[in-house]
Amino acid sequence: MAGSRTDSAAGPPPVFGSDLHLELRGPRLRAGLTDALREVVRTGRLAPGSRLPASRSLAADLGVSRSTVVEAYAELVAEGWLTAQQGSGTRVSARAEPQGAAPDAPRAKRDEPRLRYGVWTGAPDLATFPRSQWLTAARRALTAAPHDAFGYGDTRGQMELRTALADYLSRARGVYAEPDRIVVCSGFHHGLALTAQALRARGVRAVAVEAYGLDHIRELLADAGLHTPPLYVDDHGARIDDLARLRDVGAVLMTPAHQYPTGVALHPDRRTAAVDWARATGGLILEDDYDGEFRYDRQPVGALQGLDPQRVVYFGSVSKSLAPGVRLGWMVLPEKLVPEIETAKGNGDYMTSALEQLTLADFIASGAYDRHVRSMRLRYRRRRDQLVEVLRQRAPGSHVTGMAAGLQTVLELPRGTEGSVVQAASRRGLTIRGLAQFRYEVADCGWRLPERDALVVNYAAPSDSAWAGALDALCRVLP
Amino acid sequence: MAGSRTDSAAGPPPVFGSDLHLELRGPRLRAGLTDALREVVRTGRLAPGSRLPASRSLAADLGVSRSTVVEAYAELVAEGWLTAQQGSGTRVSARAEPQGAAPDAPRAKRDEPRLRYGVWTGAPDLATFPRSQWLTAARRALTAAPHDAFGYGDTRGQMELRTALADYLSRARGVYAEPDRIVVCSGFHHGLALTAQALRARGVRAVAVEAYGLDHIRELLADAGLHTPPLYVDDHGARIDDLARLRDVGAVLMTPAHQYPTGVALHPDRRTAAVDWARATGGLILEDDYDGEFRYDRQPVGALQGLDPQRVVYFGSVSKSLAPGVRLGWMVLPEKLVPEIETAKGNGDYMTSALEQLTLADFIASGAYDRHVRSMRLRYRRRRDQLVEVLRQRAPGSHVTGMAAGLQTVLELPRGTEGSVVQAASRRGLTIRGLAQFRYEVADCGWRLPERDALVVNYAAPSDSAWAGALDALCRVLP
Repeated sequence: MAGSRTDSAAGPPPVFGSDLHLELRGPRLRAGLTDALREVVRTGRLAPGSRLPASRSLAADLGVSRSTVVEAYAELVAEGWLTAQQGSGTRVSARAEPQGAAPDAPRAKRDEPRLRYGVWTGAPDLATFPRSQWLTAARRALTAAPHDAFGYGDTRGQMELRTALADYLSRARGVYAEPDRIVVCSGFHHGLALTAQALRARGVRAVAVEAYGLDHIRELLADAGLHTPPLYVDDHGARIDDLARLRDVGAVLMTPAHQYPTGVALHPDRRTAAVDWARATGGLILEDDYDGEFRYDRQPVGALQGLDPQRVVYFGSVSKSLAPGVRLGWMVLPEKLVPEIETAKGNGDYMTSALEQLTLADFIASGAYDRHVRSMRLRYRRRRDQLVEVLRQRAPGSHVTGMAAGLQTVLELPRGTEGSVVQAASRRGLTIRGLAQFRYEVADCGWRLPERDALVVNYAAPSDSAWAGALDALCRVLP
Repeated sequence: MAGSRTDSAAGPPPVFGSDLHLELRGPRLRAGLTDALREVVRTGRLAPGSRLPASRSLAADLGVSRSTVVEAYAELVAEGWLTAQQGSGTRVSARAEPQGAAPDAPRAKRDEPRLRYGVWTGAPDLATFPRSQWLTAARRALTAAPHDAFGYGDTRGQMELRTALADYLSRARGVYAEPDRIVVCSGFHHGLALTAQALRARGVRAVAVEAYGLDHIRELLADAGLHTPPLYVDDHGARIDDLARLRDVGAVLMTPAHQYPTGVALHPDRRTAAVDWARATGGLILEDDYDGEFRYDRQPVGALQGLDPQRVVYFGSVSKSLAPGVRLGWMVLPEKLVPEIETAKGNGDYMTSALEQLTLADFIASGAYDRHVRSMRLRYRRRRDQLVEVLRQRAPGSHVTGMAAGLQTVLELPRGTEGSVVQAASRRGLTIRGLAQFRYEVADCGWRLPERDALVVNYAAPSDSAWAGALDALCRVLP
């Protein structure tokens, strides 16, 4: 993709021809083409004013239908990357300036003392929240809603949202989802709390968790009266064999698509082994698919849930894809568990805003959600590439590990330096966490995690304007 | 409900207006509407040639989207029941001959069983939700919000909302409120669940409740591991003296402004006695001010909380004043309890939408909330007056009790008739609850509530178009 930049000063802008390599990824051709074209413009491979090939020629070159090209052009026109004028064809918009230039050193310095590089928050780039599109969806949803949508809703959530989610999740994440088996909740915490309550009511006493993860998730389970024995985590994800050695475990909580925070995927053999364990013991797999949409090197790994929808509780939310301030999440449940979760939730929806549910339903059904996720995927991918490249140049002793995916990565440090780096970062206003804070071992688990010195870096969180400075500050505290 | 049949021979067919009751059942609105309209034509309630209302008016009357009506009309045109002609609107087809029995007297009976007069739901009139004002507030709030408003928010809720609430509650309800002692939640259930968790963590083992109230509120406390001994309720509200005889009671949950559902106010002496009890024992008063804004005969009684803000947890929400579909509530807490509730809530706001909080903050600060409450107060007052008057004329054996306040009233019945009236109502499709369902006595409480035959009537819930029919149907089942 690293073509040379067209020089628009050297004469009339050339026609953008089929000599340009466009890599189309994903199951949906149009989306893939739109992404590829947007990237070409954004990175400056095609200069402002350049004319794009006629839709018919590009379609023939790429072997796709002409309407696919026409739609991709229309979307990029709508987004402001391209302009279309009668008689003049489709051109790169004059305001489509290439982004991602080298960080401006003096500015970064000025920002440093106040910089709060909140790399531990687990939040996406909040500056990108699609405010006007969200308001458009809210207006449409509120206008169309029948009066009874404003009442105490269906315990499972608004039907409009469950229908939109069923379509989206099966399309984007390979989840086997029907509206009747989806229960809407106020995010992952709420969903997990309801599940813990239902599991306790079933008589479950323990839920296995991964040996790397978040304290407060384990605390939530413990508050519900559940033990949380850990599973060892290596380069293939959670070690499923450990489950056989644990007693009274009725469920296992995992992040199969992208282990949090180590960033590895659960090995295919272990995916199957987890399902086998669930079938053999009657246990449940709790699949936390917190950032499944974000994979940059290839197609996202589909959800584990598709392997056995009757054994897996699938959790998702908008906290990474849109913003945590919108408190909406969802569970796709085994059929038998639906009434148990409804009992835990109560007779009516006392927790999750009906108005916001209907807004998200419209946002998904109109295609705005897909567009936003695509645009974020490109943005975060660029961030990650920049992080890798800058570290290679400025901190060769450290390196990024895990898949090219998600909103965060683990940055491996030279042995024995994690504590001092975290302290130095804190002095510079970088709120960054060492990997040690995510380790979870218990006295009798029979193994020890290897010693690792590392930082968990959420490269998604800083706004574009803070990113260059944050990156610079990070490099300064690395050995 | 028993309208006379339109005589199409006596002149031009009249327009089919909102006097016709259409009962929409089932999860699919369009299918329900299509069925209901087809039934109207089939049974001859609307004569051949009659014009149907414009889709926009019918949609507004029924509280469904216009496209739902348009689609239902289109389907019936396709089926031959209706005809649509440019300039002449949608009419009953000439070949849509009435089928079945004679339409007049038997018709009313046939329709009645489908009426669902949801007087037990505890909801306000959902047709009055101020959609456009809410959207205006949402637009202003989202436009003004800083980026970090979209993140995991302050555990206590958005500062903008807490500031607006502090002003509103002190002005409208006499609550001693500072933003720092307000914690936002997703409604009363959520707030009470958090409080129950904090009380358990303090070592509290029992919370006294009123002898009339809702099952699921007591169940919520029981689920949190708390006993719920009842206090006798008479015409002066909960008998506070009972508290002295109960052991291990760390708090008492009450509805002092308007006992739910009996509709009496807590006597001033008992308000003071409750505060004295709290001071003497270190206990807490949990004040559920669910409909404090709605009093029709004089100024609302101020909140009990004002008497001793360090001993009272004040709960309010928008469920009665706006709509339950907006999941927003608030607690005003004794200073010492704030960190305990924060601990129960977790490190961040994982439950309540930041966007909706900011929208409500704008809605209150702009004065739209006050205007809406005033307009609802007039509407509900008129409903209550009509109920009293119609009963006086048509069912002199029954009468309304309790204050002229709130959204519901207790309708006293002749002795021994409650069960048969509830059954008769059910046969006519009136989902109404007898007072017996709200009674709560336990074996060892040392007293018995008096025998009372009564209905709990939520006169606020029906839409304006359903109200007359609902009132009529109610009168028919009364002795």
